[in-house]
Parts: sequence; C-alpha cells; structure tokens
Amino acid sequence: MNMYDIITKKKHGETLTEDEIRFAVNGFTDGSIPDYQMSALLMAICLKGMNDAETAAMTFAMRDSGSIADLSGIPGLKADKHSTGGVGDKVSLLVGPMVAALGVPVAKMSGRGLGHTGGTIDKLESIPGFSVTLSNEQFMENVRNVGLAIVGQSDDLAPADKKMYALRDVTATVDSIPLIAASIMSKKLASGSDVIVLDVTMGSGAFMKTLPEAIKLAETMVKIGEASGKKVYAVITDMNQVLGTYVGNALEVREAVYALRGNIADDLKRTCLTIAGLMLLGCKKAKSLEEAMDALEEVLNDGRAYRSFLAFVAAQGGDVRYIENPELLPKAACKRVVKAEEDGYLLSVNAETIGRSSVILGAGREKKGDPIDMAAGIENYAKVGRRFNTGDELCVLYTDREESLDAAEALYRSALSFGALPVCEPTTIYGIVDENGFTPYKYNK
Amino acid sequence: MNMYDIITKKKHGETLTEDEIRFAVNGFTDGSIPDYQMSALLMAICLKGMNDAETAAMTFAMRDSGSIADLSGIPGLKADKHSTGGVGDKVSLLVGPMVAALGVPVAKMSGRGLGHTGGTIDKLESIPGFSVTLSNEQFMENVRNVGLAIVGQSDDLAPADKKMYALRDVTATVDSIPLIAASIMSKKLASGSDVIVLDVTMGSGAFMKTLPEAIKLAETMVKIGEASGKKVYAVITDMNQVLGTYVGNALEVREAVYALRGNIADDLKRTCLTIAGLMLLGCKKAKSLEEAMDALEEVLNDGRAYRSFLAFVAAQGGDVRYIENPELLPKAACKRVVKAEEDGYLLSVNAETIGRSSVILGAGREKKGDPIDMAAGIENYAKVGRRFNTGDELCVLYTDREESLDAAEALYRSALSFGALPVCEPTTIYGIVDENGFTPYKYNK
Repeated sequence: MNMYDIITKKKHGETLTEDEIRFAVNGFTDGSIPDYQMSALLMAICLKGMNDAETAAMTFAMRDSGSIADLSGIPGLKADKHSTGGVGDKVSLLVGPMVAALGVPVAKMSGRGLGHTGGTIDKLESIPGFSVTLSNEQFMENVRNVGLAIVGQSDDLAPADKKMYALRDVTATVDSIPLIAASIMSKKLASGSDVIVLDVTMGSGAFMKTLPEAIKLAETMVKIGEASGKKVYAVITDMNQVLGTYVGNALEVREAVYALRGNIADDLKRTCLTIAGLMLLGCKKAKSLEEAMDALEEVLNDGRAYRSFLAFVAAQGGDVRYIENPELLPKAACKRVVKAEEDGYLLSVNAETIGRSSVILGAGREKKGDPIDMAAGIENYAKVGRRFNTGDELCVLYTDREESLDAAEALYRSALSFGALPVCEPTTIYGIVDENGFTPYKYNK
Repeated sequence: MNMYDIITKKKHGETLTEDEIRFAVNGFTDGSIPDYQMSALLMAICLKGMNDAETAAMTFAMRDSGSIADLSGIPGLKADKHSTGGVGDKVSLLVGPMVAALGVPVAKMSGRGLGHTGGTIDKLESIPGFSVTLSNEQFMENVRNVGLAIVGQSDDLAPADKKMYALRDVTATVDSIPLIAASIMSKKLASGSDVIVLDVTMGSGAFMKTLPEAIKLAETMVKIGEASGKKVYAVITDMNQVLGTYVGNALEVREAVYALRGNIADDLKRTCLTIAGLMLLGCKKAKSLEEAMDALEEVLNDGRAYRSFLAFVAAQGGDVRYIENPELLPKAACKRVVKAEEDGYLLSVNAETIGRSSVILGAGREKKGDPIDMAAGIENYAKVGRRFNTGDELCVLYTDREESLDAAEALYRSALSFGALPVCEPTTIYGIVDENGFTPYKYNK
C-alpha cells in the first residue's frame, strides 16, 4: 500500500478501503506521509467526496490516533453535546447543569474560540479562579460528585485531527462535509460519552449556510455515530442572528447565570431545552422528548439547574460569589451605545459580521494563541423582526480598547438590514436528525 | 494576493488570473509557498482544469523562472523537436542531422530516460567519447559549424518545472493536460528555438492512451506556442508498438546509423520525414510539407544526413569509428532469442510492457540516477499484423545481467497477443495539429 496510489484512487473518484484510509491517517500523523501528499489527498476528497463507510473509517482512524477517554468509572450513561459554532452560543453553559440536575452525568472536553465564534473554555475562564485543567482523577471525581465537569481538550485527544485540521486550514480544504464530520466526530467519540447531541448551526454566522448542507452534515455525523455504536442526535439550529442577547465571554456567563435562574431569552430557552432533552432521551431518563423538555423546564424554574451550576463552578475552583452576583464579573472600561439611525423593521442580520465586530472589541481571537479581553463584547437587541425607531438602542459595545469602537460599530452596523414592512421572527430550530433522518421541529417550547 | 485564496478559486472551478498564476509559480519556486499548498493547487487543477489563457500564463511563469537560451548568435531560424515519450523512439538522432543537412540549425537540449521510455542523452552517451555537456560557447559554435548540437538540459532551464514536476510525481497530479503541456512547453520555450515540432505519442507505450487525449494535449501546446509568438506544430504518432526495430541505448544508435545510411524501417522513416519536414516548413525552407519530405528523403538516400551525423558526433568528442562501424558499439555479454510458441497473427502489443522489459535488462532506469547498461535492450520483430509460426523469432534480448533474462522474457511475452485471423498494420501517424487544429495524416511516405 502506498500513498500515491491512494491519492490516485480518490482523484479518480473511487472508494477508498478502510485499510487505505487508516494508512493515510496514521502515516500522516506519525510523519511518514508528508504534508504535500496529505494535502493532495484532502483536495481530492474535497472535490470527489467520501461515502458513509469511508467517512466512518476516517473518523475511527482519527479517533484511534490518540487516547480514548474511559468514563466507565462513572455509573450510568454519560451524555455530551457539541456545537458546530455560533455567535452568542452559551448553550453548553446551560445544558450541562440542566441535565446534571436530572441525573445525567456530563464529562465534557471543550474547545477555545477562533474567528467569529466563541469557545466554552474561554467563557468559563472569565469566572475568577475557575480552572479548565483538571487531573484525570479530579475530572472523574467531579463528574461523580456534581454530575458535570468541563475541561479543555487534552493534547492527546485525536491528534490526527489536530494535524489534519492545521493542514486543511492553510490549503483551502476545510469546507468538505465528510472531512468536517470526521473532524468533529473523531473528538466526540474519543471523549468517551455514550450519547452525543450535535448542535448543527445553519445560517450567516455558521459554517453551513443553507439548510440542505446542514442536514447533510448532521446526517453524516449521525451515521458515523451509528457505525460507532453510540447514540447520536443532531439538532439543526438557526444561526442567522445572535443566539440570546450577549456576545463575549464574561457577558455570556452573566447571561447564562440569569438564564439558569429563569430569566432566559426565548430562542436560547428553546435551543437548550431541545438539546438537553435529547441528552436525557438518549440516556433513557425520559420516554419522549416532550417529557424530557417538561422536566428540564422545571429544573430551570425551581433553581435546581442553577444550583447544579454553582456546584460545578465551585468544584473547578471558581469563585461562586461571581455567580451569585454576576455584576461582579469582569467589566469593560469603555462602552458605546449604538442607536438606530432610521425607522424600520430589522429584516436580516449577518451573524458572522457581528461575531467579527466582537473580535475587534477583544472578545475573540483572529488566530490561535491571541489574548482575549474577558469583559469585551456586545449586548445585542437587534433581533430579526423587531421594529426600531430612530434613536432606539440596537446594541451596546463593551471593550477595553477604546480605539476599536469606531471600527466595531461600523462593522456591527454593516451587519444589519432594515425594511419598511414587518417580517416574521425567524425559526430557532429547523429540525432533528436521528437514525431515521431529518424530522422538522414540532415542539411548542 | 495569497495562496489560500488562489487554491480556493481553483477548487471552485474559477479562472485564475495571470498574476495569481505567476504568484503561485514564483512563490513555490523561491520557497515562500510551501509544498503542501502547491500540491493542493495542483490537485485542484487536475480536477477542475485550466483554460488556454491560464495554461499559457503558467507556461510563461515556468519558462521565466530560469534563464532563456539566447540563440541570436546563430543566423536564421532555429528548429527544435520534442517527443512526449516512446519505446524505441530514436527520432531525435535522425531528424537533427536530416534538417541540419538542409541548412536548418538545431540547438537542442534533451532529457534522460525514465521508466519505460528512453532519453536521447543516454543514447548518445553510448558512443565512446561523446560529451553531452558543452560550454555555452562550444554549444553555439557547434551549431554554427555543423548545424547541430545536443546537450543535457541545464539546471537553470525552467527550474520551476523541475520543482513542480518532482511534487506532481509524488502527489498523483501528473496526468493533467494543462500541467503536462505547461511542463513541456516551458522548457521548449526556454530553449530558444523559433520553430518547435512536438511528437505527441499515443497508445499503450505513451502517456496519452487515446486519440482524443493526444489531440487535446497537442492543441493545448500549439496554443501555448501561438501565445508565445513561436511556430509550433504537433504530430500525433502511434505508440501502440515499438518504433523501428530496436529498444536500448547503443542498439538504437546503431539502428539510427543504418537508418541514416538509407536502411530504415517504414514507421521510423515516415515519422522522421514528417517531423523533420515540419521543422523545415516552419523555418521556411520549403513551400509545403510534401516538398520538405521529398528533400529529406534525398538527404537520407544520398548520404548527406549521415555525414551531418558524423560531423555532429565528432564535434561533441565522439569517436566516429563507432559510427563508421556500428558493430563496434558496446555489446551485451548475454543474449536470448525469444521464439513464437504458437502460430498466429500479432494482434496487439503493449509497448509500455516491452519498455519495462528493456528496463529489467538494464537499458533504462526505474528511478532517477539509476545506472544504465548501454548495451542492453531488445531487437524486436514483433510488429502488429505480422504472421508468426511456432519457432519464428519474436525478439532477441540483450543484457549483461544474465539473471534478468527469465523475468524480461516473461514480461516481453506478456506484452503480445496473437490471433488466428489477419489484422491490418496500424497507422504510424494519425495527423498533424497546427494553429488551425487537427488534420488527419494524408501523405504517401
């Protein structure tokens, strides 16, 4: 077997065998296959595709390139969730404590933000004292004791994915559904949970810009889950505008705290109930998604989810005074209120542009390793369908970099389109994909 | 401008600008663009193609990556020829002296053999004393004095092509017509001649396996020639069997010497007259191809082409006694006569397999830098359409590696297919491509 022949086969649109895919992934990871051969194969995959069996084989080879978390020391079925990225996406901060409060353990490894989308790990680090690095023993103990732990991804989690992603990122081979699916699923499968709920975002702020693409990615990942023997659901959610109200690390933690106390935006609530509901359903803690969502609404309303969050923060060293009084969380030195300059209905938002505006303010990273301003971000009232009159507040920008305000405001304004006639509020959730395929969303939450 | 965006454009099947192509070629050549980005672009080009303008732009960028030969010190129009590779292809040894004898100077840089095809430089080195490395002054002086010089390609001839070819060779991105055309034409344009005749081989022993592919490659190269302001013709020749009788370095020189004395196989003669004829026509030494071929037949018959060859060999230090008596040329220690094991008509030959058999005997290289056995090779009587009876000689194998004979014989036999019914002799030349496109061959030579 040699890499040249493997590249040739894929270039001609032929199907690679499991052995050929493992040979390529393992050889690239151990350095025996050079970058330039892998990038040729990746480009051929982008242009000729991979079928479900090839995609699963690639996922498993990537999963097996590092260590696989052993969660057998935690009793019962464990659940995990993953989002393909959004602006203002604080869902992980909410669903973890929500399902933990109902007895489903969550042992989560999470990533940092890059580009216009944030990362859960960064957000949690805005809580003074909070540590995203735990020893394996401490991690397991926390999951057993408080039902939830969230740490940064270990370097040994699917190292093949890390190396392949770095190459894809510089060779214009990122936007391939089989490669995206294999990248996400290799890490999720290596993380060891039994049930995985994927939040596949769709729209201007997401990687998938259209519903058919999003459904295709969701179906591809659900099929990988089936092939691996895990229970996987995917929820197709809207990312044509900011989810909830805030964008930025400490700002999103604050929003999450208020939400866990019951003060939660409609779109964020629906998304969290659905994702958490599927986690419960997959772990057989409910007979139906409706039943699961009802139970979850209760733990939001009666404070159990909030108390679960407090216990989780405390167990990872976070100072709970900042949760009890979120106004203590890091605050930006400068703020600017951005007001509507015309009357009209908000027709559409480019969520990616709003995400980029928050990066300019300091809330995100242009490239890996850039520092983050925890307090920076955007308090956003510009939701599609709302009516604004001249002078109404669209958003408030927060930053320590005063010099960034003009550029951030200009970019923010460029993301919005107003019209004279009313428009509907957009859908929050398009549907759910399981082993039977896509089902349009039908729940009244 | 950056390489990522250039790769992305081509991945989406868009047309690259001349500036983008120069940026990629120059950056790759100077090392500022890494291998892995170039291989991704090359794979995208393989799968999405390049139009004529892009192909010309790439050719010119590659040509300009090194020095361009200045032949202005040689009076008149200069002609060059190039073959896309064949088995038993000794055409360059013949057409050089043929056109030189009629006053067309040939200043030729030639390559070494690789894989199943031989190289003119290797063949010439089988003549004792012959040097394929001349100073620039000596090279020019020889062309002025004897009308012909053939040297190895200088390292500074289209270095971008050398680097790109090495990458294509290991990333399965060789078989793209625009890339093949740009590779060949960048070197030919940098070689400085005014008229270029391309021998585009087609068939089992050639890179192009079908006539439409061969015509497409020929048309692509002719268009590059037009864009560069040079006169370019392409001849589509058959490579479904060995050209002439011999395969191997000294063996082919011997065949060429006898041919130049008038004892020449029909297929070889037709090919040489046509290619040399177009060289004359392009240099305005004849009013038509027929007239040119008539004149060339004369210089073959009356000894002028042979004397031109003698002068050429002497001028490059070769010992002309080996030309005057070719039986003195290196002889192999072992030979084996391969005989027909059945009665029948030869239906088809896999010329590449015969080429590979000659490599086993020592006549060629598996990889760059391998040593060559000058005396090794095959004397081949197996021409399609011939009738053989059991025991008739098919070929004679020559080698110094006695242990290679069994494998070479088995491979040779595997290349031949016999049948009970007569078949036609195959076409030698399918047609000629010039700026007006493809014209089927119609000459009675």
